[in-house]
Amino acid sequence: MNIGILGAGQLGRMLALAGYPLGNRFTLLDTTGNPSAGIGEVIVDPDNQHLAAFLDAVDVVTYEFEHLPVALVEEIERHKPVYPSSRAIAVCQNRVEEKALFDRLSIPTPAYRVASSAEELEAAAAELGCPVVAKSVTEGYDGKGQAVLKSPEQAHEAWAQIGHAQLIVEAFVDFVREVSIIAVRGRDGQVVFYPMAENQHEGGILRYSIAPLPDLDDAVQQTADSYIRALLDELDYVGVLALELFQTRDGALLANEMAPRVHNSGHWTMDGAVTSQFENHLRAIQGLPLGVTRALAPTCMLNVIGREGDYPKMLEIKETHLHCYDKTEREGRKLAHVNVLADDYADLLAKVEACADALPGMPAPRWSFTP
Amino acid sequence: MNIGILGAGQLGRMLALAGYPLGNRFTLLDTTGNPSAGIGEVIVDPDNQHLAAFLDAVDVVTYEFEHLPVALVEEIERHKPVYPSSRAIAVCQNRVEEKALFDRLSIPTPAYRVASSAEELEAAAAELGCPVVAKSVTEGYDGKGQAVLKSPEQAHEAWAQIGHAQLIVEAFVDFVREVSIIAVRGRDGQVVFYPMAENQHEGGILRYSIAPLPDLDDAVQQTADSYIRALLDELDYVGVLALELFQTRDGALLANEMAPRVHNSGHWTMDGAVTSQFENHLRAIQGLPLGVTRALAPTCMLNVIGREGDYPKMLEIKETHLHCYDKTEREGRKLAHVNVLADDYADLLAKVEACADALPGMPAPRWSFTP
Repeated sequence: MNIGILGAGQLGRMLALAGYPLGNRFTLLDTTGNPSAGIGEVIVDPDNQHLAAFLDAVDVVTYEFEHLPVALVEEIERHKPVYPSSRAIAVCQNRVEEKALFDRLSIPTPAYRVASSAEELEAAAAELGCPVVAKSVTEGYDGKGQAVLKSPEQAHEAWAQIGHAQLIVEAFVDFVREVSIIAVRGRDGQVVFYPMAENQHEGGILRYSIAPLPDLDDAVQQTADSYIRALLDELDYVGVLALELFQTRDGALLANEMAPRVHNSGHWTMDGAVTSQFENHLRAIQGLPLGVTRALAPTCMLNVIGREGDYPKMLEIKETHLHCYDKTEREGRKLAHVNVLADDYADLLAKVEACADALPGMPAPRWSFTP
Repeated sequence: MNIGILGAGQLGRMLALAGYPLGNRFTLLDTTGNPSAGIGEVIVDPDNQHLAAFLDAVDVVTYEFEHLPVALVEEIERHKPVYPSSRAIAVCQNRVEEKALFDRLSIPTPAYRVASSAEELEAAAAELGCPVVAKSVTEGYDGKGQAVLKSPEQAHEAWAQIGHAQLIVEAFVDFVREVSIIAVRGRDGQVVFYPMAENQHEGGILRYSIAPLPDLDDAVQQTADSYIRALLDELDYVGVLALELFQTRDGALLANEMAPRVHNSGHWTMDGAVTSQFENHLRAIQGLPLGVTRALAPTCMLNVIGREGDYPKMLEIKETHLHCYDKTEREGRKLAHVNVLADDYADLLAKVEACADALPGMPAPRWSFTP
């Protein structure tokens, strides 16, 4: 089966690497003019001239980036199956629709308001109680298009800085940690869940994910499973879905946002789980049985951001796995990640610190648990 | 680092798949006119016109097939580093040199003679005691160029059938099982060993490999380690070396042959070991630290020969991993392999039988042990 991917960055690259062993071939459609995947047939199409050729080449279409014009995806759906569907994209690329879906499915979220002017932003900030986070409704990615308001008086400045017609304003959550759940739904409706990960961001960019969590109550995993299952079934979803959540001091989960694709917080599964999220996404979209999601060992993923790490030094550390994206260095750019496995969490955290030392500018890890 | 591979079949394909995550790019030189790798830059060069372009493109050269003209490899070595070296190729492609090296390093082998005529073959058969196996000294691969003599009188017929100027004649060994050891030597001389595998052939083609072995005495693994270490050090070898052995009823090991490359009996490591043989070969040849060779679980590899299997059925079986080579079907052709993992050997053997049922023409597995 020839798989078409909209986008030709590191997620497309890792999908292709997972799919060759399944006998797949890949055609990647790049609209940026700057593809980095370095694998498969890459159609560079910044002026949107080659969609027909792309569609001719492929049997099924998926994507690595959900901020695509919905009309384009609907057009593609008229010719070839697209998984996840345009409906998933439409919901996931719009924070208002996403929150409305969470509400409809009784998935708790932080308190929020929608603001369509600086005045409404100011009123929302006052009502929710500062600090609040204001986010553009569309095109948010990796912390761009966001602002934190420490008082309602900052509303006009924040409104101008973000520069969007509509914002979501969210109350700050006193969370213990950020976590995520990744699940996969097959074309036959079968659903499998990965163990939840704890994620550490800095500057809006993911730095560390660790899974499974040594102190996670089974009931919390089951709650997360039930939330993401509700989303998958409601959207008649096919493929990998990621849901980011806050865990509060009392253990409760509040949904933050979701992504209709393979997700950075699931990269640990490439070495730490029986079947990676990439392979399971591909199995799902081509109607194959889904693979086992069990974790093999305590695993931590470290993102390499902006500058390459000292990889020989990191590979000296036992049971580390390198995943380079073959990109040039640029501030804030995701260049690679490293997965570290260990027999126990004390050993894992020691190895992670050693890896972090080999990564320029990597913030120190902060974990919510002590092993 | 751009890695050049001589050959563009499934071993080159799997090397490339293991190397992209290390940040490598690949240029594969195919001299057959019929490459199947389907990945990397493939230079199709049946008339040997493009060696200079290949050498310009790459930083280091390796190969997936040792039956290459030694003069060609020596020529390449004058321009770029080649691992393993032309000396390893020269030894491994010539059974007389290989046996002489085993003898020199006190690695036991079945009793053997060299025959340069039908008369010498007849005399060797009489001396060793029939049955004997006669093998062409060069270009043997997957059971081609071999004959079994049940009596010395068959010598003339066997000589004519094999049609080579020199043969190795080997006494039959009353072995319990065929096993193999795979080891990796780095550019700094570091050596790591994989757990030994038991291999089942039919018609000269590998069908099953299982590792680690539940009934293998540590001392036997250490003996195999010492044999292959002697070979690696003697050849100042860099990369993966595979050594096939017979294990006799009393537990002793007799060397059969070796291959200076990633090896079919090591494909189980792709899912069953912390670091695959492919990644470790690439780490070795570019001077990176070698990865951990520990097995993750009891693992069995099944080769898919001649006709594709029922992959959806096989992927229904938990913890199976498919590795397709994207080739067209042809009798005796290696098309794919499947790795099956399990918690224990009883479970593993049951799953292997279920997988074998989904493979047309697969012989039933026969194991030397009962779980």
